[in-house]
Amino acid sequence: MKLRTVEYDESTNVIKLIDQRDLPHKLNYITCHDSEECADLIKKMATRGAGAIGAMAAYGMAQAHRSTCCPGHSKTTRKAYNTLLKARPTAVDLKNAIDFVNESDDPSLAATEFVENIVRDCEEIKRHGAELINRREGILTHCNAGWLAFVEEGTGSATSPIYGAYDQGKEPFVFVDETRPRLQGSSLTAWELERYGVNHAIITDNSAASYMESGCVEKVITGTDRIIAKTGHVFNKIGTYSLAVLAKYHGIPFYIAAPLSTLDRTTTNYKTVKIENRCENEVKHAWGQTLHMEEDIEVSIANKGSKAYNRAFDVTPPELITGYITPKGVVNCDELSGLH
Amino acid sequence: MKLRTVEYDESTNVIKLIDQRDLPHKLNYITCHDSEECADLIKKMATRGAGAIGAMAAYGMAQAHRSTCCPGHSKTTRKAYNTLLKARPTAVDLKNAIDFVNESDDPSLAATEFVENIVRDCEEIKRHGAELINRREGILTHCNAGWLAFVEEGTGSATSPIYGAYDQGKEPFVFVDETRPRLQGSSLTAWELERYGVNHAIITDNSAASYMESGCVEKVITGTDRIIAKTGHVFNKIGTYSLAVLAKYHGIPFYIAAPLSTLDRTTTNYKTVKIENRCENEVKHAWGQTLHMEEDIEVSIANKGSKAYNRAFDVTPPELITGYITPKGVVNCDELSGLH
Repeated sequence: MKLRTVEYDESTNVIKLIDQRDLPHKLNYITCHDSEECADLIKKMATRGAGAIGAMAAYGMAQAHRSTCCPGHSKTTRKAYNTLLKARPTAVDLKNAIDFVNESDDPSLAATEFVENIVRDCEEIKRHGAELINRREGILTHCNAGWLAFVEEGTGSATSPIYGAYDQGKEPFVFVDETRPRLQGSSLTAWELERYGVNHAIITDNSAASYMESGCVEKVITGTDRIIAKTGHVFNKIGTYSLAVLAKYHGIPFYIAAPLSTLDRTTTNYKTVKIENRCENEVKHAWGQTLHMEEDIEVSIANKGSKAYNRAFDVTPPELITGYITPKGVVNCDELSGLH
Repeated sequence: MKLRTVEYDESTNVIKLIDQRDLPHKLNYITCHDSEECADLIKKMATRGAGAIGAMAAYGMAQAHRSTCCPGHSKTTRKAYNTLLKARPTAVDLKNAIDFVNESDDPSLAATEFVENIVRDCEEIKRHGAELINRREGILTHCNAGWLAFVEEGTGSATSPIYGAYDQGKEPFVFVDETRPRLQGSSLTAWELERYGVNHAIITDNSAASYMESGCVEKVITGTDRIIAKTGHVFNKIGTYSLAVLAKYHGIPFYIAAPLSTLDRTTTNYKTVKIENRCENEVKHAWGQTLHMEEDIEVSIANKGSKAYNRAFDVTPPELITGYITPKGVVNCDELSGLH
């Protein structure tokens, strides 16, 4: 049985999810009982990653519909919609998910359909993306756009092509950007890759350029939280734009991998999208496990009297992107709007 | 009285130094009694930064000379020379320092002269560098090339121009790259800037490009561990090369600041210089202070089963460098060899 990040039991109206805050140290499951708790868990990043947030929000929206006696758009479901929408501002999958569920006559069925679409999309990304990868290639990825960021083990967006290439015996080697401040690379992507058996090494974000210059990194693949379909601009974890500029300078192909749920089909000007600024303590503190006691602990790692800026996402323009790896194949920015 | 990173008492043959591993949480002094201990403290980074390593090594070499009864190059001093030389491979100041002391008839006097030259050089960098900075400019710096990396409080290499501009009332704003893995930016540079009163914010290394793109960062100034005088290639903390490429892409001036002790006048091919790879635990663990107990602790922050690469330095070619801020003024790469 393949693991899933998020599952929904319609009969009990309960969501079961991997608490990603405990990884890589522990694989723990927790449960979620209503849409308010769902929004809170998204906000606190128990579930994170574009697709997993979408799946979680779809189920949370279904929970709200199931808990109200009135059919259609009651006050309860309107409130749930707004609470979920505000949980995280950047990933468009969230809005796409709750809209999809809300517009259906059967919210639970719609939520399941939304989630299964993500699973299928990630499988298709795996198929198309694997073709791009050459034997024993060095591939750099940023943050976690692995299956933990989506739904089903062994897929993902950025990692799907890597898992596909691995399955084909191409022996890819992955440079895992640790991805400060929350270290989704060194804690989540590295955990996933080890579990799947893919060779990899964690590197600090600031060393990517040096490994590109040395010829070790031959391709960059990242995921995304939102693609503006009309223009091809990509919102993703802070540091993605930096990698795109560096890849361009070194003549290295730079790919974005995403399911169709990550397409923002309504925004025309990317500058109108809100970029989340998160708490400065994510930069000034670290969360880790003590070496001997295996106890989780928060420590101060910066000068206490200094402030920190914590812009959580950046924007990569289409001119820096070699191609978009989608469930429909590898496309360029002009083809995004036509994908269905 | 201005603080100093490293001081030498000739009468007792003891070096007193700030233990930089305790910063930013505590300002602690420790003592060093012989050249072997000196090399060990450099290796363990109690003292770090090109100039401070040079000063420490100069004093350590003087200690060895003073502890031997034979004049000139005894077995003791030859052994001390080799031990000190191997303590850190990349910063050329170390070799320059011990050669300078060894070639003198009065090693203690020579060590003092070497250190006072660094202090004077940093003052000159302050004078010349301050002229480059405009009123209320946003300046990004990487790692710690502040006074902690040299000798005397209120100077440094990269921070000297900033302190100078601050003294002139120009109100610079500093973006402090946290500088993974050892966080010299968020722990040392931020501590220094707060102490001096300079406005600043810590940022993650991977967000520098985004703040450049937004127009917040208008200039980049970093220090260096070694400049190849003949070609202008710069060895510095991992991440410097990345910033140079990003600055070039955004049309932002990129300066390297250094005293003359950082010039490598003998190497012709920069590829022959050894780049230090440090222990993977620097990437996989974090060192911090618990929030309530104020106890120093090491925690695991990455997937335990993964390996990490920890290349500690990178090379920035002269075509990415706008100018070198030296004690003799701001020069281009062709002028480096002629500086004395």
